[in-house]
Amino acid sequence: MTLSEIGRQAKDVSRILNNLGSREKNMGLEEAARALLEGEDEILNANEEDCEKAAQAGMSQGLLDRLRLTPARVNAMADGLLQVAALEDPVGEVLSMKQRPNGLLIGKKRVPLGVIAMIYEARPNVTADAFGLCFKSGNAVILKGGSDALCSNRAIVKCLREGLERAGLPVDAVQLVEDTSRETAKELMRLNEYVDVLIPRGGAGLIRTVVENSTVPVIETGTGNCHIYVDETADLNMALDIIYNAKTQRIGVCNACESLVVHRSVEKEFLPMLKKRLAEKEVEIRADEEARAIEPDFKAAAEEDWGKEYLDYILSLKTVDSIDEAIAHINRYNTGHSEAIVTSNYFHAQQFLNEVDAAAVYVNASTRFTDGEEFGFGAEIGISTQKLHARGPMGLKELTTTKYIIYGDGQIR
Amino acid sequence: MTLSEIGRQAKDVSRILNNLGSREKNMGLEEAARALLEGEDEILNANEEDCEKAAQAGMSQGLLDRLRLTPARVNAMADGLLQVAALEDPVGEVLSMKQRPNGLLIGKKRVPLGVIAMIYEARPNVTADAFGLCFKSGNAVILKGGSDALCSNRAIVKCLREGLERAGLPVDAVQLVEDTSRETAKELMRLNEYVDVLIPRGGAGLIRTVVENSTVPVIETGTGNCHIYVDETADLNMALDIIYNAKTQRIGVCNACESLVVHRSVEKEFLPMLKKRLAEKEVEIRADEEARAIEPDFKAAAEEDWGKEYLDYILSLKTVDSIDEAIAHINRYNTGHSEAIVTSNYFHAQQFLNEVDAAAVYVNASTRFTDGEEFGFGAEIGISTQKLHARGPMGLKELTTTKYIIYGDGQIR
Repeated sequence: MTLSEIGRQAKDVSRILNNLGSREKNMGLEEAARALLEGEDEILNANEEDCEKAAQAGMSQGLLDRLRLTPARVNAMADGLLQVAALEDPVGEVLSMKQRPNGLLIGKKRVPLGVIAMIYEARPNVTADAFGLCFKSGNAVILKGGSDALCSNRAIVKCLREGLERAGLPVDAVQLVEDTSRETAKELMRLNEYVDVLIPRGGAGLIRTVVENSTVPVIETGTGNCHIYVDETADLNMALDIIYNAKTQRIGVCNACESLVVHRSVEKEFLPMLKKRLAEKEVEIRADEEARAIEPDFKAAAEEDWGKEYLDYILSLKTVDSIDEAIAHINRYNTGHSEAIVTSNYFHAQQFLNEVDAAAVYVNASTRFTDGEEFGFGAEIGISTQKLHARGPMGLKELTTTKYIIYGDGQIR
Repeated sequence: MTLSEIGRQAKDVSRILNNLGSREKNMGLEEAARALLEGEDEILNANEEDCEKAAQAGMSQGLLDRLRLTPARVNAMADGLLQVAALEDPVGEVLSMKQRPNGLLIGKKRVPLGVIAMIYEARPNVTADAFGLCFKSGNAVILKGGSDALCSNRAIVKCLREGLERAGLPVDAVQLVEDTSRETAKELMRLNEYVDVLIPRGGAGLIRTVVENSTVPVIETGTGNCHIYVDETADLNMALDIIYNAKTQRIGVCNACESLVVHRSVEKEFLPMLKKRLAEKEVEIRADEEARAIEPDFKAAAEEDWGKEYLDYILSLKTVDSIDEAIAHINRYNTGHSEAIVTSNYFHAQQFLNEVDAAAVYVNASTRFTDGEEFGFGAEIGISTQKLHARGPMGLKELTTTKYIIYGDGQIR
């Protein structure tokens, strides 16, 4: 099937999904979950095939771990669908409705986006997760996963479609693009006739390629060069705990801390504490000259360190003289993801919240909380780092748009 | 100045605008309005220069009319700024705030987008309008108008900046790109480092170029292939009034009606009435075979007519057998702008509202109402026909984004 045919089918099905009630959608999700569990062996066999090929091709251990499925992971995928079924349906809510002086009654109603395309890497669990969120919010989804996960994705999508069929729902609500070439990816990025929104999920390279090449509206997700600023009035032990958590609890995630900004007046006391605490996880610190004058063991930071998302046990450290300087530094180098201040000063807390330009700005808490589940959305399809449409963790509501519905009795202008 | 420098200045200034209160912003708008009135002669002279050049270059009468400024039009620009000053400031509203089980208090706050770029054609009034809306919503704006209006735009932006200066506000809140080459336009479309959103305003060609070439997130505005469906139960006189209004009240606008869809059962009675009424404005009707069997004077519609935005005294006409067929036809050929049904049937009205995929869907009213002022937003920067971020008329709220502000007391994951 050509991409254009896939697109048209998705668009056609989106008209049907738009009209489904929550009960029908939940039934589809439940049947899809059941089909995943029943198809577990088939999924695991397909995944084994992917993993073998990838290992032979020399895939790194970290990526192989993301690719590999286990009975527990298949169970988690099925559970994920049931959790989404339990979430409130965002579609159909009328956000406002007002009568105009001419008698027109104008309402703003939440409706599905229509057709969502996802381009992602070799993480087969994204396949089921993305389907669940898109389906519950009334959208048809076109999935294009990484070539390394093709067998797994095929098996998973087959199960999802079987589930939909059993529930008497249109199977083309989820379609997999089996051609994993770059040309097809680029074609998908320009399928404006059928695709309403494109969401890339993966590393910085993938995101950049999509932003550069897509004519379909994109929601940019992911990269996070997250800072923690230790203010002159910070509770230093609290700062240590927050930094330790944000840097080391999980290093490969976009809400991990990558850079510290420290007020000069606390460095003498704080840097030795910091060095000791981060040594527990052998975190490398790349600092400016001033910090190195206090802790000569820190490595020297280069200019490029300030903008770097390490996704590793590395942290940059910048000394500042004031909160203004801290905010300016953060606004210059951050990626608009998550930023935190540790402070006891009320005015500094408020200033930081007001002036730092990011999706999520924290006072006295770890940046690791930027996450759909932690925010109470139940699930997320990604974390938007752009300002259009959605900013921060995107749940079901962020997969909808609105339309104006207008009731008249013959009004003309 | 290079575009990159313009971008950086805009970004720097956007940090200041983000912190301004409504009172300061309103003062800036009032001073800018005053400066426009004081600079009227200068603006009119500059505009005269533009108009002469354009006339020599053979610009059409219609475009010349859009380019030309008069004392009344300069007055209207100044008035527009005062009207925007009177609108409620959207910035700073906290849309929700909730405590999580771990004690984190998570709020969602409305904030400016940052830097907005506008690319538009030779309509100098857009210059003042765009500045007013962007400034009130706390955004810096980079304007790139058509080359034919360069002298006018220079004079207008000079006045706006004088007004800001008098109010003690940063003049770079509004900057004009004086290099009107295509290369510079393309560079602006890829200025992701500084520009948060790009809004094109103009004809279908301009919009397409921007969508095709931009890596900056775009809000697509404008093109409207708007339909009116005359249902079998329509009040035919009401239908006539609505069609006459939507087609002929102003032909060059995106919310004008371009296509009729008529239920077969009313055609015998309705088409002769329609022909007579639209003859008053010499509207050409391009119809399918069935309609032409009843009214042979109608011209024959070609396939390409169904998707056409005429912006002229021309209307296509399609016969259908059911509301389902009408909706399918509209969803296939529309541009997602404004669509209307004329009906007395409750269920048909609801079905049309639910199933037609467009920014604004009307029952028994003219499509001409899709407009920021008519919707009660006070002013609009354009009408979005995409589904991301904003759909339909965009007022001040649509020029903002949100950010999560999170209050903690040491929370870690």
